[in-house]
Amino acid sequence: MLARDFAKRPVVTSTPDASIREVASIMSSRRIGLVVIVDRRNPELVVGVVSERDIIRAVAQGLDLGRPVEEVMSAPAIAVEAEEPVWRVAEIMQRHGIRHVVVTRGGRLYGVISIRDLLAERAALKTLAEHAREIF
Amino acid sequence: MLARDFAKRPVVTSTPDASIREVASIMSSRRIGLVVIVDRRNPELVVGVVSERDIIRAVAQGLDLGRPVEEVMSAPAIAVEAEEPVWRVAEIMQRHGIRHVVVTRGGRLYGVISIRDLLAERAALKTLAEHAREIF
Repeated sequence: MLARDFAKRPVVTSTPDASIREVASIMSSRRIGLVVIVDRRNPELVVGVVSERDIIRAVAQGLDLGRPVEEVMSAPAIAVEAEEPVWRVAEIMQRHGIRHVVVTRGGRLYGVISIRDLLAERAALKTLAEHAREIF
Repeated sequence: MLARDFAKRPVVTSTPDASIREVASIMSSRRIGLVVIVDRRNPELVVGVVSERDIIRAVAQGLDLGRPVEEVMSAPAIAVEAEEPVWRVAEIMQRHGIRHVVVTRGGRLYGVISIRDLLAERAALKTLAEHAREIF
């Protein structure tokens, strides 16, 4: 089982000049926890990610939510290549304390995997249980 | 393995009259995704929960973030009793599309389990893999 078997596509993206509130609206209406921020001219080039946590932090700091999302995004994005085994995805999430990983293919945006995707299939759980030593 | 074996304690709580921004600050500084909202006079009585998603929705709707959090909290909270098997926790998360479950003991607030807690231990993964039929 490889990262690409779990990658959700197409990816919900936005650009660095979108406002924090616009990105929050995308998350809320699409019911997702991560928006991938891509280059305005090259939508396969990932420049960062905005997670729910990034927006919560902006709220906590009292930032103007009309400001560009690039001011609060996490960059560079933490990514895994599509051909990596899925337990590597769990290991990366664990190591970085994150719940979403960007999947790239040849360095270009391919998909996103969330921690929920890993819990949502028996085969994935079995693989993760077998590789627990590498993950933790 | 029972829900109580995974429940994180003490629980980070707030009250219904706290502002949305105050609860966002608690989440951000404690690095948690859920704040349990309890009755002002009886802190063991859960009246709701505020997840990151609830706050993102408030931002998306352009709400005044100085408003009381009770206007955006999810209520009633989805809870599981401490003596339930841990796979039941995964099943509840899956069914409701949530990433945190409140754990009660005799109906009183006991702890919180996050989806990350379930992925963070080999024994839990094995149990979940074995009970995949009940969960999914």
